[in-house]
Amino acid sequence: MSDIERLYSDRAGKMRKSEIRELLKVAQDPEVISFAGGLPSPESFPISDLQGVVKNILSQKGSVALQYGTTQGLTELRDIIAERSCKEGMNVTADNVIITSGSQQALDTVGKIFLNPGDTAIVGFPTYLGGINAFRSYEANLAGIPLDKDGMIMDELEDKIIDLKKKETPPKFIYVVPTFQNPAGVVMSEARRKKIIDIANEHDLIIVEDDPYGNLRYDIPHIKPIKSFDDENRVIYLSTFSKILSPGFRLAWTLASDEISRKIIICKQALDLCTNTFTQFIANEFIRSGSLDLHILKIREMYKPRRDIMMDAMKKYFPSGYTCNKPKGGMFAWVTLPEGIDTEIMFLDALKEKVAYVHGKAFSVNSGGGRSMRLNFSYSDCERIEEGMKRLGIVIENKLKVLC
Amino acid sequence: MSDIERLYSDRAGKMRKSEIRELLKVAQDPEVISFAGGLPSPESFPISDLQGVVKNILSQKGSVALQYGTTQGLTELRDIIAERSCKEGMNVTADNVIITSGSQQALDTVGKIFLNPGDTAIVGFPTYLGGINAFRSYEANLAGIPLDKDGMIMDELEDKIIDLKKKETPPKFIYVVPTFQNPAGVVMSEARRKKIIDIANEHDLIIVEDDPYGNLRYDIPHIKPIKSFDDENRVIYLSTFSKILSPGFRLAWTLASDEISRKIIICKQALDLCTNTFTQFIANEFIRSGSLDLHILKIREMYKPRRDIMMDAMKKYFPSGYTCNKPKGGMFAWVTLPEGIDTEIMFLDALKEKVAYVHGKAFSVNSGGGRSMRLNFSYSDCERIEEGMKRLGIVIENKLKVLC
Repeated sequence: MSDIERLYSDRAGKMRKSEIRELLKVAQDPEVISFAGGLPSPESFPISDLQGVVKNILSQKGSVALQYGTTQGLTELRDIIAERSCKEGMNVTADNVIITSGSQQALDTVGKIFLNPGDTAIVGFPTYLGGINAFRSYEANLAGIPLDKDGMIMDELEDKIIDLKKKETPPKFIYVVPTFQNPAGVVMSEARRKKIIDIANEHDLIIVEDDPYGNLRYDIPHIKPIKSFDDENRVIYLSTFSKILSPGFRLAWTLASDEISRKIIICKQALDLCTNTFTQFIANEFIRSGSLDLHILKIREMYKPRRDIMMDAMKKYFPSGYTCNKPKGGMFAWVTLPEGIDTEIMFLDALKEKVAYVHGKAFSVNSGGGRSMRLNFSYSDCERIEEGMKRLGIVIENKLKVLC
Repeated sequence: MSDIERLYSDRAGKMRKSEIRELLKVAQDPEVISFAGGLPSPESFPISDLQGVVKNILSQKGSVALQYGTTQGLTELRDIIAERSCKEGMNVTADNVIITSGSQQALDTVGKIFLNPGDTAIVGFPTYLGGINAFRSYEANLAGIPLDKDGMIMDELEDKIIDLKKKETPPKFIYVVPTFQNPAGVVMSEARRKKIIDIANEHDLIIVEDDPYGNLRYDIPHIKPIKSFDDENRVIYLSTFSKILSPGFRLAWTLASDEISRKIIICKQALDLCTNTFTQFIANEFIRSGSLDLHILKIREMYKPRRDIMMDAMKKYFPSGYTCNKPKGGMFAWVTLPEGIDTEIMFLDALKEKVAYVHGKAFSVNSGGGRSMRLNFSYSDCERIEEGMKRLGIVIENKLKVLC
């Protein structure tokens, strides 16, 4: 091959490795206590329940569960998802549900159907890295809107939209993770959920609401999705089985208007024909047997003490000067360290102490987040969390000493 | 939503529904004998073998088999695929293997990393519809090269490349299904396999070799893949578990040079993070237990008589004037009917007689193929094939009567 570069598309030239995926590789050393990935606890997987479900599906429905399925997804699974979504206040039928191969595929699809090269999408600052990668793979420009403890700041959002319109680069959509945000852990307030709908209505924009963590709440009651206030059907809502059943199943779902759903389905036909049929059957049985709801309760009980241990250990082992809002749910704590610390550089010190995290810049569409880091508390058990936080405290302390 | 069209990307505006996927919906009526889909026989699924494999995986490896995996795919599975590929004459290691969510995802990825809007890719005429859809979703122009009984015609290929270069639209790659081609059923000769490598070397192009059916051979010994002659590492080879294990598992693999593999992996990170881990573990165990090789023999024994019945029934029931090369493997027979028949229009008559096929134009990048149709012989059992061909014979006969 003499000159392969010449053959690549423009977008391929701009594709970057996901830093988190690379970090996960490093953190595979069993001696490293990793707060880096966004992994559920392996102890959380409902293996014995699945044994029964899978056995029945193979013996009773094998001939369809192992066959190609429709692009939109298994009808029975879409039915039950629609039913549950209605209970959460979202006005949808099974026709509005599309099963995707993880929410990442939904993000890719959103990018593919909305973004021309040079188009602008609005995201959080910070925001989920997988969203950044998906949208950038279509050569989009991303504008980051800061968050506070109540989620994306609406005044900043409005100003940015007006500014972008003035520059004749109006945004196509607003991507938001409103509940236990990845990475910041915050929850968007109900007032802002209504406000973001008003803003999208006024400027005629799409909202992409990514909600992988809504069920993982530890101190607060159920939070209404933005889509439950969506009177003009402009919200594309994404959720997933990755955090409540198994990420290995690669199963997620999208709720969207009839019109947008049709477009997503046509797009998905060319992406992978259909999502894994076998695991769709498994998820459907798992929900209908009542196991999923019981399992969600079990996961909450497992993760809540892990979050508490992490927050307590932070107080105990971290030198003062850091900030961190206690997350009310989800899988992540977002820590900002004192001025002068660069968490990307500090990562090498952390690895030497056998502890890992993701540095804040990875979640930023500009150069911000340099003093921050994302800590996952779902993957490791309480003992390892305590030990890992202790190690991380030492790393930070040593870093601060050098700075003084 | 006032004006959603305004928000779609240029590529979204050009996305078309897959005609086959739409036809599959129509053909779901159990009274219709469908030769339309590219579905394996549901009786071919190795359900009892899978029961044991799945049970062991859940009990022994559940904590990793249900977790996120690496983007490139399960190491053990890549190892065994590399080993088997080497036996077929391809010079690869596990580093050159990427597990994809069906070969359709590999086709999408190839489109994404190579094709700018307006770029040209070369395909067969006719060719696999899923390839057309994937490449067109990146706004590519497709140039179709005719086939004869020995596959893509090399003189026509060379002329087309020279012509495209003159027009300053040199092609990026050649997409070819050399073995039991979909839809034409033909096998590219070894001489042409060597020749296409020479042509790609001379013009410095990529070859995308799609080989889903290579194992489904009924009358001939193993055929060396084009990639086994690939002395400059420019062939991206695709194959799949869909036709030899289960399409519902959505598992396929790509073999490519180190450089191209790196690019595909980065691209795939943003597409779906990783392929279904659970079914990767299942496939790995299924191969290593020796079940896959036994199963392939079983499928060949199941499909060969179906092919024979279809060819015999064609002679018996079709009015003279059609042409069809007896396929030596794969899942499809390609029939061209006498002048004056339009198989797209005739499809409605066929549905009235409760029999379905895919009309030839669906596989064409221009307006050709209007007299042809693709008949699948893997899905239905011998009895239904006989009955379906009888019905189709009547449809064609009636059509010819009207023409006279």
